[in-house]
Amino acid sequence: MNWFYSKNIEGNLINIEGEEAQHASKVLRLKVGAKVAVIDGIGGYYECEVLSIDKRKLVAQVVTKKEHFKSRAYRIHIAIAPTKNMSRFEWFLEKSTEMGIDEITPILTKNSERKHIRPDRLQKILTSATKQSQKATIPKLNPLVDLNNFLTHVTTKEKYIAYCDYENKHLIRQLETGKDVLVLIGPEGDFNSVEIKTILEQGFKPIGLGQERLRTETAGIMATASIHLFHEK
Amino acid sequence: MNWFYSKNIEGNLINIEGEEAQHASKVLRLKVGAKVAVIDGIGGYYECEVLSIDKRKLVAQVVTKKEHFKSRAYRIHIAIAPTKNMSRFEWFLEKSTEMGIDEITPILTKNSERKHIRPDRLQKILTSATKQSQKATIPKLNPLVDLNNFLTHVTTKEKYIAYCDYENKHLIRQLETGKDVLVLIGPEGDFNSVEIKTILEQGFKPIGLGQERLRTETAGIMATASIHLFHEK
Repeated sequence: MNWFYSKNIEGNLINIEGEEAQHASKVLRLKVGAKVAVIDGIGGYYECEVLSIDKRKLVAQVVTKKEHFKSRAYRIHIAIAPTKNMSRFEWFLEKSTEMGIDEITPILTKNSERKHIRPDRLQKILTSATKQSQKATIPKLNPLVDLNNFLTHVTTKEKYIAYCDYENKHLIRQLETGKDVLVLIGPEGDFNSVEIKTILEQGFKPIGLGQERLRTETAGIMATASIHLFHEK
Repeated sequence: MNWFYSKNIEGNLINIEGEEAQHASKVLRLKVGAKVAVIDGIGGYYECEVLSIDKRKLVAQVVTKKEHFKSRAYRIHIAIAPTKNMSRFEWFLEKSTEMGIDEITPILTKNSERKHIRPDRLQKILTSATKQSQKATIPKLNPLVDLNNFLTHVTTKEKYIAYCDYENKHLIRQLETGKDVLVLIGPEGDFNSVEIKTILEQGFKPIGLGQERLRTETAGIMATASIHLFHEK
């Protein structure tokens, strides 16, 4: 069954337009009566049948609906400095979405080499990875924000900072069951000492992610994996 | 300190040639007396001083030497079907090297869409990721091998197979401390039922990697992360 994303849902009818409609018609060659899965990006999952289709628009009739599809007891929020090489950051978005992540905040730090991102492009990657990995909730991508500005708005209680200190206790040994978690991950040149001091003063607990030297995006993936694997224990 | 790879070590002198010498001379602009790190790819780590340098050859004098640099109590071997999109497989090689992996066997299965790989290119990625993540041992990349052929040569006792069955007990709940581990990961279309039967008959234990639907390369990374995180407990 092919997966689509649409926010255009009215009663039992879902409209799919633009690129997705074109893909369904021209590439997948779906016909009237075909079964499709549609997600609304905020937890709603719909099993549907194609009512009508052309290259501009697919209309799907809802057969069954599930709210809070595959919901989890804990939320994962990673605040991370985008990498200089954008494809590395995009890999992080795709892979963390596959593994399961709820919120991503790109942060600007003193050592950040990348100061701009393209939210539209990143949003597409998140949507595509959400569909591909058969989830109904697209991770929330916040706007790029200055670290200090970000810190003043944090409300998560379980908050951690990963920086290059291999003496810190591993994240997986500090987590608590079922709690929402925020992990802050620095740029390629790491947080500087002033930033680390400020973050620790805000109540973030320092964590390790193992004895290996990980790139920024790999640290993000390792943190995401650690939170899920903690809950597998 | 910049990291180099060389197998050309004679007593206290190490020769670095080719691309790495050119990079050291033209890009890094290293001078005589500069400190460099050299690895031999099989666990040897050498802190050196540059004795002479031009664009063709760098000669380094060994100051200190460490054998079995950052060695681990357990070996990780992942046998995995290369992905149709090569960059996904290359990403797996880079990330698993960063996290720590010892051996990778690309396998050919019934549903494999990719039937050829370029070992020279993959070897470069492994070498580069090994240096970048400051290890001294380059993961062993075996030649692409047919699944059945591979199975007849397996000697690892702790061996697992990951396939798309979400009922299987998670890898992290099946591992034993300090044992060498082999994990077999199928292609994008999964192993077929005949293959799964054969593999299980060979004593591989079925594992899960969580409730999420992971791409082949992400499953490889999740397996690698699980083995490391198990040992963090």
